[in-house]
Amino acid sequence: MNPNPKKDLLSIEHLPAKEIVNYLDTAEKFIEILERPIPFVPALRGKTILTLFFEPSTRTMLSFSMAAKRLSADVVSFSAATSAVKKGESLLDTARNIEAMKVDGVIVRHSASGAAQYLAERLSSFIINAGDGQHEHPTQAILDMMTMRRHFEDFKGLNVLIVGDIAHSRVARSNIHGLNTMGAKVTVCGPPTLMPCDIGKLGVEVALNLDKVIADFDVVMALRIQLERQESGLFPSTREYRELFGLTLERVKKMKPKAIVMHPGPTNRGLEIDPEVADGPRSVILEQVKNGVASRMAILFIHAGGKIE
Amino acid sequence: MNPNPKKDLLSIEHLPAKEIVNYLDTAEKFIEILERPIPFVPALRGKTILTLFFEPSTRTMLSFSMAAKRLSADVVSFSAATSAVKKGESLLDTARNIEAMKVDGVIVRHSASGAAQYLAERLSSFIINAGDGQHEHPTQAILDMMTMRRHFEDFKGLNVLIVGDIAHSRVARSNIHGLNTMGAKVTVCGPPTLMPCDIGKLGVEVALNLDKVIADFDVVMALRIQLERQESGLFPSTREYRELFGLTLERVKKMKPKAIVMHPGPTNRGLEIDPEVADGPRSVILEQVKNGVASRMAILFIHAGGKIE
Amino acid sequence: MNPNPKKDLLSIEHLPAKEIVNYLDTAEKFIEILERPIPFVPALRGKTILTLFFEPSTRTMLSFSMAAKRLSADVVSFSAATSAVKKGESLLDTARNIEAMKVDGVIVRHSASGAAQYLAERLSSFIINAGDGQHEHPTQAILDMMTMRRHFEDFKGLNVLIVGDIAHSRVARSNIHGLNTMGAKVTVCGPPTLMPCDIGKLGVEVALNLDKVIADFDVVMALRIQLERQESGLFPSTREYRELFGLTLERVKKMKPKAIVMHPGPTNRGLEIDPEVADGPRSVILEQVKNGVASRMAILFIHAGGKIE
Repeated sequence: MNPNPKKDLLSIEHLPAKEIVNYLDTAEKFIEILERPIPFVPALRGKTILTLFFEPSTRTMLSFSMAAKRLSADVVSFSAATSAVKKGESLLDTARNIEAMKVDGVIVRHSASGAAQYLAERLSSFIINAGDGQHEHPTQAILDMMTMRRHFEDFKGLNVLIVGDIAHSRVARSNIHGLNTMGAKVTVCGPPTLMPCDIGKLGVEVALNLDKVIADFDVVMALRIQLERQESGLFPSTREYRELFGLTLERVKKMKPKAIVMHPGPTNRGLEIDPEVADGPRSVILEQVKNGVASRMAILFIHAGGKIE
Repeated sequence: MNPNPKKDLLSIEHLPAKEIVNYLDTAEKFIEILERPIPFVPALRGKTILTLFFEPSTRTMLSFSMAAKRLSADVVSFSAATSAVKKGESLLDTARNIEAMKVDGVIVRHSASGAAQYLAERLSSFIINAGDGQHEHPTQAILDMMTMRRHFEDFKGLNVLIVGDIAHSRVARSNIHGLNTMGAKVTVCGPPTLMPCDIGKLGVEVALNLDKVIADFDVVMALRIQLERQESGLFPSTREYRELFGLTLERVKKMKPKAIVMHPGPTNRGLEIDPEVADGPRSVILEQVKNGVASRMAILFIHAGGKIE
Repeated sequence: MNPNPKKDLLSIEHLPAKEIVNYLDTAEKFIEILERPIPFVPALRGKTILTLFFEPSTRTMLSFSMAAKRLSADVVSFSAATSAVKKGESLLDTARNIEAMKVDGVIVRHSASGAAQYLAERLSSFIINAGDGQHEHPTQAILDMMTMRRHFEDFKGLNVLIVGDIAHSRVARSNIHGLNTMGAKVTVCGPPTLMPCDIGKLGVEVALNLDKVIADFDVVMALRIQLERQESGLFPSTREYRELFGLTLERVKKMKPKAIVMHPGPTNRGLEIDPEVADGPRSVILEQVKNGVASRMAILFIHAGGKIE
């Protein structure tokens, strides 16, 4: 649990609905600003934000950097190969050193679950979790929920299906917690070997046959397949995966008329999603990207001292 | 051909003379600004420019970044190992995603000829080609023509010699098209194995013996030798290359009194150009670098909404 | 010797006391600014500072970048693998090219002793040495002396011990010169194989038994152990090193009541310094980091045109 939810954003689990709504409502204000000819506001002038990425992810870092810059914050970056900073102590040492240079907020991505919380308990800067191991990716869930709310207005009665490697996905985990809190109904679907052990506690339905259920949902979210998982033997062949769980054009045709297709990106086209679907009329993937900048602006704004509520 | 020359700068071929002149005249205004104590103007305040480089080139990226910053644009960078983004589809996917974060212009370098045009047809952001395979490098030609015009005022009657691996050089190709359009006379010189197949259509003279012709030219431009070409067997030994085609001190002494030596950089000193020549009185290599920033300011300014003509 | 001390900061050796004091006094003014809610001043608006790092060092580069940005300078970065730029000529070529893009100051780190001076003699931009081989790291000495002066007010009578691989340490060398000039008394301690050949000329005492002398000093500075030195056979085992020269909790207890522990970072915890000491009450390591930004602001400010004296 987050020891200090007002200071940090570490996870969506345990976050009250009204705080999620505050993020979403604030993000809507920033979407308006992004549509102006000069999409910059002086809200965080004089603040310094550090992106501390121990896993490479150019897109996510770019999204955060652009969000921070559009708030007029100064952005500094520290990208470390995981090999260079192996121990939790070294992670802390690195973060403390950079904090001593006077940093207001730290956006951290790390392969170890709990890394963001570890820093949050030890630094006075506010910490935003940009993905920690297989634990959570809360800003992705905020931008995903923002995208869903823009299409369906209310989470009550919303039927969401998440397809893929649920066991190892922090995107799935954060979305499940947030959607449960907001009153949506979440179903997960994927190979039985890729379902998490604690699936019974997550408050979701499980579907094993995608074709049988796909017509029931308002939102179908495909997760990115990590191809390196195949080596572990948990994973079917890519051809078999696509046949059973890929969002193919044929499969997507069965969806409800207004249902949307989501993907956190980057896509493996032709594997978990077909190119015609990713670029098709149901796809909101580029909206997710745009909403990502607005959501991260909202999150940085709130944690850098904007009012919560 | 560029489908939308007002939106993008993809190539010099097919560019009318008056547009080339517009770039050159605008660049002259920016040279004046670069000489001020505070060499910044607010022309592109609020605009975001993306450098999307799939081939590493720190110098060219730096030149574009400095040009954009001096216009007060916000610059974001995305450098991808070619291995990570292998297919054209992925190039587009990456570019579309970043565009969705709200980018006004994209400066793209890619190892595939046509990559810039591919993006230009699919994105609403303006695209500046910073080198695509062996096709074109239009901003290099603009800065080279700017440098020539500063020394000789008029392109009519100007005699330009380009020396080196003409077949694989996008710098040569862009300069040839631009200089032909402006009325200069272009001759190319190099090993016969490194002449392009379509040499007959390029509108240039071919010289095989550098020593015999070097005294005839106002401008002698040495191209950078790509050492990896040697493995293909098309290339003589470096010693033989220098003896036949290197800009040695002895050879350069034969040039006309006011003739200049150019090189797009970075130089292989002692191979295609001797150190004494690169640093000597005829060399305008550092002027090319300085004019590069001014030219790129002009190009960004025009394509971001400054008037053409 | 520095040919032009007003233009460049290349070394601490030969720097007069009044110039060291000027750096320290100016840095004190910037510490005040760093404590403001908006820690930025417009002092270097319109100036462009280049970080030219041929050895990777994210922390040092970040410290300089933040210093430059807080003075409102524009910062551009050029990081080169040493492999790409092998010869002194190429270093110069790279620097000259970037200077031609209009850069006011260059912060250079290079594995070759003398690299900073080499550039200083050939470029009109001011050069700040951010570490050259085993020669000097002058900005580290300024921030270290600033940290000492904040704790002890005067260098006269100050007893400083530097522990570790003195022979290969540019941090040790710069501190020794600066502290000697300011009137402090410096003792070095470490394995005899890691003492420099010219130790007799450095004006320091040598202690071989750390336990016998540690109680005599006001400042004990542990150097970072370069683990790759062990392969050369000059170095004892890490276990033996810690036993004889590590700043262990037990050893540090013997220090004078007000004595402080310093380390240039990043620390090898459990090797040259124990975690309990690095994070303990005598440690001023994070103060060094903070003072590093203020010192580098002072240095950039002075060399970019602020008055000396």
